[in-house]
Amino acid sequence: MTGALELEDPLRWDRAVPPSAVVIFGANGDLTKRKLLPALYRLAYERRLPAGFAVVGISRTAMSDDQFREKMRESVQRFLEDSPFDADLWRDFALGLHYVSGDIADDGLYKAIAAKLGEVESQRGTAGNALFYLSIQPSQYEETVEGLGRAGLNVSRNGDGWRRIIIEKPFGHDRASAKELNSRVQRVFDERSVYRIDHYLGKETVQNILAFRFGNGIFEPLWNRRYVNHVQITAAESIGVEGRGAYYQEAGALRDMIQNHLLQVMGTISMEPPVAYESDEVRDERAKLLRSIHVMKPDEVLTHAVKGQYGPAKIGGADVPGFRQEPGVAPEAQTDTYAAVRLTVDNWRWAGVPFYIRTGKRMPKRVTDIAIQFNHAPLAVFGAETGKQWPNLLVLRIQPEEGISLRFYSKLPGAGMKLRPVTMDFNYGTSFGTRTPTAYETLLLDALVGDATLYTRQDMVEASWEVVQPVLDVWSETKFDLPNYAAGTWGPAASDEMLAGQGHVWRVP
Amino acid sequence: MTGALELEDPLRWDRAVPPSAVVIFGANGDLTKRKLLPALYRLAYERRLPAGFAVVGISRTAMSDDQFREKMRESVQRFLEDSPFDADLWRDFALGLHYVSGDIADDGLYKAIAAKLGEVESQRGTAGNALFYLSIQPSQYEETVEGLGRAGLNVSRNGDGWRRIIIEKPFGHDRASAKELNSRVQRVFDERSVYRIDHYLGKETVQNILAFRFGNGIFEPLWNRRYVNHVQITAAESIGVEGRGAYYQEAGALRDMIQNHLLQVMGTISMEPPVAYESDEVRDERAKLLRSIHVMKPDEVLTHAVKGQYGPAKIGGADVPGFRQEPGVAPEAQTDTYAAVRLTVDNWRWAGVPFYIRTGKRMPKRVTDIAIQFNHAPLAVFGAETGKQWPNLLVLRIQPEEGISLRFYSKLPGAGMKLRPVTMDFNYGTSFGTRTPTAYETLLLDALVGDATLYTRQDMVEASWEVVQPVLDVWSETKFDLPNYAAGTWGPAASDEMLAGQGHVWRVP
Repeated sequence: MTGALELEDPLRWDRAVPPSAVVIFGANGDLTKRKLLPALYRLAYERRLPAGFAVVGISRTAMSDDQFREKMRESVQRFLEDSPFDADLWRDFALGLHYVSGDIADDGLYKAIAAKLGEVESQRGTAGNALFYLSIQPSQYEETVEGLGRAGLNVSRNGDGWRRIIIEKPFGHDRASAKELNSRVQRVFDERSVYRIDHYLGKETVQNILAFRFGNGIFEPLWNRRYVNHVQITAAESIGVEGRGAYYQEAGALRDMIQNHLLQVMGTISMEPPVAYESDEVRDERAKLLRSIHVMKPDEVLTHAVKGQYGPAKIGGADVPGFRQEPGVAPEAQTDTYAAVRLTVDNWRWAGVPFYIRTGKRMPKRVTDIAIQFNHAPLAVFGAETGKQWPNLLVLRIQPEEGISLRFYSKLPGAGMKLRPVTMDFNYGTSFGTRTPTAYETLLLDALVGDATLYTRQDMVEASWEVVQPVLDVWSETKFDLPNYAAGTWGPAASDEMLAGQGHVWRVP
Repeated sequence: MTGALELEDPLRWDRAVPPSAVVIFGANGDLTKRKLLPALYRLAYERRLPAGFAVVGISRTAMSDDQFREKMRESVQRFLEDSPFDADLWRDFALGLHYVSGDIADDGLYKAIAAKLGEVESQRGTAGNALFYLSIQPSQYEETVEGLGRAGLNVSRNGDGWRRIIIEKPFGHDRASAKELNSRVQRVFDERSVYRIDHYLGKETVQNILAFRFGNGIFEPLWNRRYVNHVQITAAESIGVEGRGAYYQEAGALRDMIQNHLLQVMGTISMEPPVAYESDEVRDERAKLLRSIHVMKPDEVLTHAVKGQYGPAKIGGADVPGFRQEPGVAPEAQTDTYAAVRLTVDNWRWAGVPFYIRTGKRMPKRVTDIAIQFNHAPLAVFGAETGKQWPNLLVLRIQPEEGISLRFYSKLPGAGMKLRPVTMDFNYGTSFGTRTPTAYETLLLDALVGDATLYTRQDMVEASWEVVQPVLDVWSETKFDLPNYAAGTWGPAASDEMLAGQGHVWRVP
């Protein structure tokens, strides 16, 4: 890097946030405390927010503005992971925090929000722009959106400001409910104003997949069925359901992780190059890829998908409960705490290349990564045994150690030509002397500047439900013998067998 | 790596050296002391040599076997770089050291060698096998080979042993003398018994180029004119001629480095995949590549080759003499202490891709590496300025830090999509917990087991003389304005201009 490049401040780029208010439904909830307010504070700390900026918290609990500010200060101080808390900055920032309490089912709430937005607009100068953030129960999404619509909050009063809405996952519980939700939201907000958040797409390392693929000339030529043998996407959690048993029982791993996050990651890995790095171009390609995924027929589900649920185990001398022993979980629950699917993509680039996706709770470690397993060299020049065991492998590590590593063969020092696999490594964190913003910082900033590149669009959401729906259907009609893996292991034997049938093996990340 | 792979002793592979004697002409010379005896001792230390093994040193100086042994012990102790000296082992090893003094021009010497070989054969059990090593003045090569022939030493007495000959560089002073030398050697030893040594090919990292290219499936698809923009091969020395001025004055950089070492490296980088890693297959491909290099017409030499000679300079406060101020050098010497050429390869893989080769003395640092400069990504998806400045670069480092690094673009952490070049690195030395053998260990062992893969063949030597001959011819007929670069710099401006004409720039290694 030249000096000039290094001196450039990476966090002060061109994209300026216009005056605006962020209206958070669910302002007393966990996501607001842990992620949203720390992210907004951090954006203020980075001087990324304009003078005319305000936050309006909405929740059922009665609170004054000052009480809300105090609560938020505690949260920000507690959950600001790697940033300093600046008390002076906070004082200014807190002046822009407001609060409105009320019931989502009550039209009076929306009138109160309208009044508060008017107040904020004149006091803080937010110019009529508002970003609504739905951090509430999914069952309340439609009601809230329609309440906003009835109060006319979906358009700015004088018509020259913008109104946008961020909707948290899960976006629908199945294909039908997702379509219904889309259609009801779109009656109030046009699609360009709807920001369906998938925080995986905001992760630096997921964004970096696009930089890696399309910023370089040497990877894309290998990125196809001719050279790639198969792809493995792993998202493993070491924890269990942590008190969320009742919710998780209804969701399951396939819905909770694969339908949204991991299919988006797969889309990012496998999409065609976009014409430009612009919202519509990138999302068109990602949507096209998702639509190209082969949709399983019911009789394919049993060989292309594996359901797992963890049972009790002793880990490191401690008793770990099984899923069915978690509070709020039914003793016969058929929930998938582990799900694995074998997907294929019906296009010229990927035809015949398996994409294996797995996710699970109570795995041996917390790790998310993508492994591109390349084909063997076409000819074993150095003898039959060398070069056959460990073909080239590219691993894109999403978390916890963000980076890229490439496994290749090298000559082992010594007489004769013996080859051994070695690894070339790039560590994302240590390679740049700069802090990595959280996904929520990135995504909130994007929504405020009107960049929807990293948000999912209606067609993407529906296409990914198409992919998982047949599996959900067959699983709901089938009684599985659960639990089928012990807590602290890499999932059920059936998952290994699914890969073995194709001559493949799950990596140990 | 699995445990089984790691436990395997990399230095005890299958290739066993048969009983044999190594006969070194020039046993009192620098190469013998610094490289050959330390290498043979080290092979003994590694238990790579058989019980029936002997060394016969030949030189003009009168010495007893014991005096020779003592001299060799001193050299081995002094020049064994990274290995322990084992006095017990040395005692055994030294018993196999013998010495014969005499004049190469005198047939009596060859009779004495024959007698000594007979003695060694019965006493040490060398089974009639002998490897002659010519570490003498190139002007004595023919005479020595013919002396061996007249004494019948080119074949074993009873016909069931082998006789081989290793010939040091330079192999010829120009195309005509190389051909003449080849033809005279081949009248005595058939080509399969002639081992022309090029110690660059014995370097681990040069051998590793083949492992890297053909042991992996993902590099070869990129290894062609479609993806490679150009290649730079650099061999820079920081020292001057170090008392070898009189010799060097007649040789020059083009002959001393490019004709042999660097053209062989270029051949290794650019040859087609061999059918197998076997002597004839690999050498056929390397030879074919060397023959495919475009031979310059006289009028192309001035634009495709640059001659340089260093002048005096002050480096770090010290006065460094220019080449013409070195002892033994003529004050008007036209010698090239720097040479750079732009070569192209006339085949389907490489047509139109420049291979720039440069070598020089008194450069800013000692470094040998190969840089594969790839083309830019075909489309600048992330905006016109990103991705254009630093296209992908693969550097194969031969010395001093042996390894491989790959430069690619990554997303810079922070809002928006800004790309920055980063590097993925593999260090050859630290990646394996094992010692790297020296080039001479590898090459002596290869010759003893009859593996000529890393030796140059007549056709390769002649093809590489074909490449440099037009440059030598034009340079010898032209008077250059020398010196044209200061000691401690990267060579003459004309070299930069040669690349600039193609839109290229020399890397700073």
